[in-house]
Amino acid sequence: MTQAKPDQQAQQGNSSSDKKAQQYGVTPQSVDFNDWYNEVVKKADLADNSPVAGTMVVKPYGSALWERIVRWLDDAFKERDHESLIFPTLIPMDFIMKEADHVEGFAPELFTVNKIGTEVLAEPYVLRPTSETIIGHMWSGWLNSYRDLPFLHYQWGSVFRAELRTKAFLRTSEFYWHEGHTAHASEAEAQAEVRMILELYHQFCRDILALPVVRGEKTASERFAGAAATYSIEGMMRDGKALQAGTSHYLGQKFSKAFGVKFQTREQKEEFAFTTSWAISSRIIGAIIMTHGDDKGLMMPPNIAPIQVVIIPVGRKDNFEEMVVEADKLAAKLKGQGLRVRVDGREGLTNGFKYNDWELKGIPVRLELGPRDLEQGVLVVKNRTADDKETLPRAEAISGMKARLDEIQGFLLQRATDFMLENTVTVDTYDEFKAAIEDGKWVRAFHCGDAESERQIKDDTKATVRNIPLDDAEFFAEREDGVCVHTGKPAAYGKRILFGRQY
Amino acid sequence: MTQAKPDQQAQQGNSSSDKKAQQYGVTPQSVDFNDWYNEVVKKADLADNSPVAGTMVVKPYGSALWERIVRWLDDAFKERDHESLIFPTLIPMDFIMKEADHVEGFAPELFTVNKIGTEVLAEPYVLRPTSETIIGHMWSGWLNSYRDLPFLHYQWGSVFRAELRTKAFLRTSEFYWHEGHTAHASEAEAQAEVRMILELYHQFCRDILALPVVRGEKTASERFAGAAATYSIEGMMRDGKALQAGTSHYLGQKFSKAFGVKFQTREQKEEFAFTTSWAISSRIIGAIIMTHGDDKGLMMPPNIAPIQVVIIPVGRKDNFEEMVVEADKLAAKLKGQGLRVRVDGREGLTNGFKYNDWELKGIPVRLELGPRDLEQGVLVVKNRTADDKETLPRAEAISGMKARLDEIQGFLLQRATDFMLENTVTVDTYDEFKAAIEDGKWVRAFHCGDAESERQIKDDTKATVRNIPLDDAEFFAEREDGVCVHTGKPAAYGKRILFGRQY
Repeated sequence: MTQAKPDQQAQQGNSSSDKKAQQYGVTPQSVDFNDWYNEVVKKADLADNSPVAGTMVVKPYGSALWERIVRWLDDAFKERDHESLIFPTLIPMDFIMKEADHVEGFAPELFTVNKIGTEVLAEPYVLRPTSETIIGHMWSGWLNSYRDLPFLHYQWGSVFRAELRTKAFLRTSEFYWHEGHTAHASEAEAQAEVRMILELYHQFCRDILALPVVRGEKTASERFAGAAATYSIEGMMRDGKALQAGTSHYLGQKFSKAFGVKFQTREQKEEFAFTTSWAISSRIIGAIIMTHGDDKGLMMPPNIAPIQVVIIPVGRKDNFEEMVVEADKLAAKLKGQGLRVRVDGREGLTNGFKYNDWELKGIPVRLELGPRDLEQGVLVVKNRTADDKETLPRAEAISGMKARLDEIQGFLLQRATDFMLENTVTVDTYDEFKAAIEDGKWVRAFHCGDAESERQIKDDTKATVRNIPLDDAEFFAEREDGVCVHTGKPAAYGKRILFGRQY
Repeated sequence: MTQAKPDQQAQQGNSSSDKKAQQYGVTPQSVDFNDWYNEVVKKADLADNSPVAGTMVVKPYGSALWERIVRWLDDAFKERDHESLIFPTLIPMDFIMKEADHVEGFAPELFTVNKIGTEVLAEPYVLRPTSETIIGHMWSGWLNSYRDLPFLHYQWGSVFRAELRTKAFLRTSEFYWHEGHTAHASEAEAQAEVRMILELYHQFCRDILALPVVRGEKTASERFAGAAATYSIEGMMRDGKALQAGTSHYLGQKFSKAFGVKFQTREQKEEFAFTTSWAISSRIIGAIIMTHGDDKGLMMPPNIAPIQVVIIPVGRKDNFEEMVVEADKLAAKLKGQGLRVRVDGREGLTNGFKYNDWELKGIPVRLELGPRDLEQGVLVVKNRTADDKETLPRAEAISGMKARLDEIQGFLLQRATDFMLENTVTVDTYDEFKAAIEDGKWVRAFHCGDAESERQIKDDTKATVRNIPLDDAEFFAEREDGVCVHTGKPAAYGKRILFGRQY
């Protein structure tokens, strides 16, 4: 298994990163990545276990992070003339049954409501696993003419898909997301929407979350239940596994035919709408955690961090309150630059405890402010991505804060990109393929496109096709010819495709 | 029944408001207020009927309005150091059973989930009717010391309470809200929180929604199921009925004892936390509709309106596109002032249709822009609250837009306040009481505080105690002594209290 490499900048000067991590109470990534994840989620106050099987409780810090994700994406949708709606959480059971692939995909995961008050329902409801069906039903009533199109809709909310083994943010029976749903008068327009959204997701991941992702199309066996084509963005976690961070589906006329979503064309003919759906869910928080975190805990990319700068007033009993007042003044200055700042004025805690607590929470920059610093006009500055503190003239530290945060943002993206590229292997034989997957790498290989071969590869290696990188993808896009790494047949797709184990 | 009085400003120059309303396709308020409401909701594109019994689908315009409500309140909570969390939608059935009053209040309205996938559940879940129970359960794990308090939490989401007769926004089985939940180390602190929130709700209604509301305490029989005290804000709709627009509950130690939410005090003793909960729901949209609307449709208060100014390019076929371009330029100017502006560039619709459509949607200001206006450097301006158009020099219309919107906001609040005061009657006999209620008024009267008497009054008149106005309420706060209008016993509360029929 690929180990998260000790980051040179972050680990500089540590003789034993294991020991240090234990001191902070988190299992090192190299010892058990799964334990590391669960402990960080809980200790950084992102989420807690829930008394409801399969679900989580998102705590204030996790909720603040999710709200920032929601806000950014919501603004982006609105800028692109998309409109939000609110559909009911319950869906009549028979709606789910109307699209054959859809019901097959979702039936085993459905939550059923069979009683309201004391009345047992003849026709039960399900908690939505996704809303294509009820939205299709409503659209059929709203749509008359090509003039009504496109419908550019989305909603924020939660959906329900039964999970046996819970993992906060990554695998929960109730999860949080937006689901976009659009209807168009032509296939070309719908396809353009699907690709526009995929590109938006890509930009969001790259520029805001510092997550390098590979844009590509899923193979038929990995498509969304009911889609004609599914596109995804895939990111590499620090254990080498892939995480599908967002999806955008072209649904063709499948759902519009199932729900009668039709319109009169400009030429006065009757036609079914061409529809799309797309989503990013709360699992993206898992991607942030597992792409950037280290043995000290989280590392929040500054552009999404709920708190970008934490100020620790460092004083003894007799001057602590004065230092808190000074820290508040400093915070006001930084907030004046539009930065998100927190002063840790908690009493009765050691400075060391506070440093570790905020490092665990991944705050990009820590400032320490003591009486001597105040006297000397300096600030002690510590980047979360660095191991050493700096002492800087106060004015310089303040005026340089935005640039410092940008630098940290850039560093995180570069580090994650390097990690992904270093841990992706190009192979031509099935032995190389298996060895690389076993070693926790992603694999680029030719494939014949045969679904049965995909299934066998999965049985052999637990790896699946992550996607077929698009021609304009930032990574792995080169067009090439070759023969299938598994069957030796001529390769499909005109390029190597991406395999890996996944979350 | 109190009729919505023809608003003098809005109706000026109309010989027949009924006829005009019919032309726009909405039943006049004076003919059937209920039909008027349902038609306005649907025709203004706020919400639509849903295939799920008891629920609604909120359409883009309704969703945009709700989002603005959410944004304002969310910012206010955060400014006051409250933190959002996300709790699961499902709650174990036995949690609901733990607080006796709570289960009695909610049992008849619960949605039960009895199956996940193919597995029938031995212990069913309910869809949350409200989240005190699961939050109490989680708090019991998070709380140790008085140092951890206060917990100042809230969440946005939907809750489920079965309703047989649906009315969009006012009465739906699934509705949307925030629920605030706080825990404190002392009763005094918890009570202060309850009152602080009530005051915030009051300010929000008055300053943003232009809704005059009466802050007061509920009588014991009208309390939230499980509360030690319930406070509400009550507004008067244009048919004279009351709408409870927000509630704030002091829960004492009832829920903390049921769920073991206890802490070590400063004096090292064990104590149960003092908790509160509070909410404003999507029914507040019903209050906006029914307080401000007239026979032409909605009237959106400018401070909450998703669109404050709509620009109609008025052109013939040969110059329509040019007018759209000019309208877009004008929109950009107004947006530069921070205003929310829409250009109606739809083709193939008459100007009259567009005017009516945007009046129905209640856009505060309409601008009309035609070739001659452009030539002459003027704009045609129409306030939604006025009946006549004005023609103004372009620069004046633009620079005065903010002041114009403020004026409309002030006008709506004043008109609603006048309406509420005019339709509230002070009575001293039960005959007067019954006559006033029958006439669709609110009644101010003395009451003995006896629950059985309240029940009889309700049986006789369908009116209930709306609330006991607080001493610092903006309306009806005067302290007075007297005898009960119903029983002749000495009055409780030291003041007249407010009765009315309610939504």
